[in-house]
Amino acid sequence: MKLRIRSELTYRFEAPTDAIYLIQAARWPGQTILEERLEGPTGVELVAHTTPDYGSRTLRACLSGDVCLTYEAVIDNGTLKRLPPTAHQHSWTELPGETLTYLWPSRYCPSDGFERFVGNQWSEAGGAQVLAILDWIKANIAYTHGVSTPQTTAADTFLDRAGVCRDFTHLGMAMCRASGIPARAVSAYALDLDPPDFHAVFEVYLSGGWWLVDPTGLAPVEGLVRIASGRDAVDIAFLSTNGPCQMLKQSVSVERV
Amino acid sequence: MKLRIRSELTYRFEAPTDAIYLIQAARWPGQTILEERLEGPTGVELVAHTTPDYGSRTLRACLSGDVCLTYEAVIDNGTLKRLPPTAHQHSWTELPGETLTYLWPSRYCPSDGFERFVGNQWSEAGGAQVLAILDWIKANIAYTHGVSTPQTTAADTFLDRAGVCRDFTHLGMAMCRASGIPARAVSAYALDLDPPDFHAVFEVYLSGGWWLVDPTGLAPVEGLVRIASGRDAVDIAFLSTNGPCQMLKQSVSVERV
Amino acid sequence: MKLRIRSELTYRFEAPTDAIYLIQAARWPGQTILEERLEGPTGVELVAHTTPDYGSRTLRACLSGDVCLTYEAVIDNGTLKRLPPTAHQHSWTELPGETLTYLWPSRYCPSDGFERFVGNQWSEAGGAQVLAILDWIKANIAYTHGVSTPQTTAADTFLDRAGVCRDFTHLGMAMCRASGIPARAVSAYALDLDPPDFHAVFEVYLSGGWWLVDPTGLAPVEGLVRIASGRDAVDIAFLSTNGPCQMLKQSVSVERV
Amino acid sequence: MKLRIRSELTYRFEAPTDAIYLIQAARWPGQTILEERLEGPTGVELVAHTTPDYGSRTLRACLSGDVCLTYEAVIDNGTLKRLPPTAHQHSWTELPGETLTYLWPSRYCPSDGFERFVGNQWSEAGGAQVLAILDWIKANIAYTHGVSTPQTTAADTFLDRAGVCRDFTHLGMAMCRASGIPARAVSAYALDLDPPDFHAVFEVYLSGGWWLVDPTGLAPVEGLVRIASGRDAVDIAFLSTNGPCQMLKQSVSVERV
Repeated sequence: MKLRIRSELTYRFEAPTDAIYLIQAARWPGQTILEERLEGPTGVELVAHTTPDYGSRTLRACLSGDVCLTYEAVIDNGTLKRLPPTAHQHSWTELPGETLTYLWPSRYCPSDGFERFVGNQWSEAGGAQVLAILDWIKANIAYTHGVSTPQTTAADTFLDRAGVCRDFTHLGMAMCRASGIPARAVSAYALDLDPPDFHAVFEVYLSGGWWLVDPTGLAPVEGLVRIASGRDAVDIAFLSTNGPCQMLKQSVSVERV
Repeated sequence: MKLRIRSELTYRFEAPTDAIYLIQAARWPGQTILEERLEGPTGVELVAHTTPDYGSRTLRACLSGDVCLTYEAVIDNGTLKRLPPTAHQHSWTELPGETLTYLWPSRYCPSDGFERFVGNQWSEAGGAQVLAILDWIKANIAYTHGVSTPQTTAADTFLDRAGVCRDFTHLGMAMCRASGIPARAVSAYALDLDPPDFHAVFEVYLSGGWWLVDPTGLAPVEGLVRIASGRDAVDIAFLSTNGPCQMLKQSVSVERV
Repeated sequence: MKLRIRSELTYRFEAPTDAIYLIQAARWPGQTILEERLEGPTGVELVAHTTPDYGSRTLRACLSGDVCLTYEAVIDNGTLKRLPPTAHQHSWTELPGETLTYLWPSRYCPSDGFERFVGNQWSEAGGAQVLAILDWIKANIAYTHGVSTPQTTAADTFLDRAGVCRDFTHLGMAMCRASGIPARAVSAYALDLDPPDFHAVFEVYLSGGWWLVDPTGLAPVEGLVRIASGRDAVDIAFLSTNGPCQMLKQSVSVERV
Repeated sequence: MKLRIRSELTYRFEAPTDAIYLIQAARWPGQTILEERLEGPTGVELVAHTTPDYGSRTLRACLSGDVCLTYEAVIDNGTLKRLPPTAHQHSWTELPGETLTYLWPSRYCPSDGFERFVGNQWSEAGGAQVLAILDWIKANIAYTHGVSTPQTTAADTFLDRAGVCRDFTHLGMAMCRASGIPARAVSAYALDLDPPDFHAVFEVYLSGGWWLVDPTGLAPVEGLVRIASGRDAVDIAFLSTNGPCQMLKQSVSVERV
């Protein structure tokens, strides 16, 4: 599917502050960047870096004052397939070495705590297990703004039964990892997300490949444009800074071309 | 029911240490102490105090060396009734003032976090709600030694799905309080507990009185002899010390007379 | 000191909601209520209860719509003395039985975790120890709005190094309890607090009595009018409800008569 | 320095269990593997993988019964230099892209919570800051077995003031990351560690390179042989399994050749 994505972020930095943006479409085999344009503050050098393993593209700069960054691109996101229940779960010995890290607990996904729950709840494996986890989340967690904070973990959300896309993703990943399935967080532009915003989803490694899933069910997987990947929200924040900043304006849009 | 209870605790205190024991049958309207005998270390004064509100009897002393405390009693524990599903839940305004404190979260029962779960899960009230909570615990939590620690809270057990009597009690109380039902922890001697040990259960305030329930289902409520009550394990520990000590021997026995 | 205190709370309850207010001056031996006036919503019965042990006065009602409660009183708060460094710390066996409960950890004061820190940091006891704790808090914790939440514990504040009066009080109490000194939370009207608001302080049991201290140093102890006491913020909230409500207006004032 | 390292791990697996070992010397530019020998259970295929970014070598297998794995090697660990106070701290924009991930909080290093503490405590940067952090840890944290668990985080250790090498490393990394310095965990064989065991240390990125430091001070940095690196203990465990296992025998030895 061809999609035109656009984001505009205007933030105020009272003092010179180091910032890292993660807003560009990933250089990822599955998607093609047909055209793109980045417009930043004049006179500021943006240091670009692409992680070799999953094509996340960081932009870094030391910023001060009111700073507007605009990114616009046309992306062919290929043919993202929905995870089938028959997708095969690999044993630890079969998994590619680079996927092992996504089996372990991380800052917001303390998956080690979920093992007994997952074992009690389901006796599936592979795609069927992931789909059962997504069904459970849909049935048990309310999509609610204002109940979670940047410190909220999957364990917190499991108890509190409410959250936003970030929390749904952390909970889904924690349950998948506790089931022995590598899971990693993905930030994305998402078609049909209402209101439009950066979206957080995750992907699981099954049948020899990564499969994107959206635990919120708010956006079709076929309409996702991948930005960044990582262990959890820590790695895929669209903006990280080493000092305070104030959001003045932020807009995201995604449309079919 | 008439029950003979006995406990013997031998602990080693390397240095002089303040200690508080809570091992005597409570002076509680519902139970009658027919006879009792306490044997402590010679030459050590035990300071006794009974809390006016629920008859818990603390024994305090500064101890050193190997110290053996033996308590033996014959108790008529009255006619403890099983909680009926029809027991009435009081509104906050109807509750006796002294029960309000058992509505609030405590160290090991962060009940404020359970409100959405409880609201999603059940639409009962009163006795039916408490019985539904006990059924849920029986179906979802495994009685397992070695998975919890003295720091484990009801939130931890909710995720971990396993624990011992203390953890079952904390989880049950957290869910009851989150349902608007006063719940307090009770330590007890328990008939038919295997292996015999101090037991932790709780009681809920419904239909104008307190009802004992055992979330582990390991001991019949009719065979309980009450020791102490409080907000959670913090208040009912059989031994608290302000320094290290080592258990040398501990035995508990309960038998029908 | 004679003080005129006044509070006015207007809250919106969309649906009928049980509420508990704790805003009246405590019936406490140390202070005299010279005159007082309570004005609540017409046609609503307020259920009053005074806890026998420390004179906290709860007002309960089932409320709906916009509800204004006004309380006004003139209080002689006696002669509150500042804690002297020579105040004597009691051993566990010397303490009155009813103070033991304030030695234990509570929801927001997990004092068991602070024992090694307290032991490393200070070798004082009694008043000198409490004053050293207050000095440490003053030197290390910033009074800052917006960094803590209702879930913040003393352990969180110890790490985060910032908070408001509630957090200062929890941290001070956790350190005192870890030092073997009974400590309990007190809500109060406070002279010279800027801006005026309900204040949270605590008191410690030393030399046979309770001594009020203000870990924030924002209000003189002599100008405090006691409202409620308890283990921590759980017990002294000026308003607890079993459903959502919205603050429309709230004002507090304290002046010398 | 030339070092002969040896480890022997015998574990019992009641049921077939997937296991990952991380016990071999890393293939790292700074150290040379002069000879090595691995002896595993007969008839079991060990799947080997080396992470491209830091040369950690995982060995995977599905195991059952009593399994002994022995590794022996002679390593020239090069000339590991002690971190000088003058080592330069890079701004976020100067840092190599692949080091950014070690600035972020991780499962056991919630470094985001340490920022105010670090800012209050020190006004250094670079090597001087790291050395000040190590001095603070030495002065404030006791090396004590039995107070931490596999769930213990740097925030827990900061409060509890005691732990083992793993906890010291997590605390040091959390403070370094909160200071804007990339820090990553390293497992190692360590000369002069008494008793000999796998050791956990960390390294910081300053002046264009990684510098190893040992927050416990128990082993000289010059005598370390690197095994694996990662965000925290999650990534460098010498043995991870997806089911229970029981340690029958484990020995580690390091000696100068």
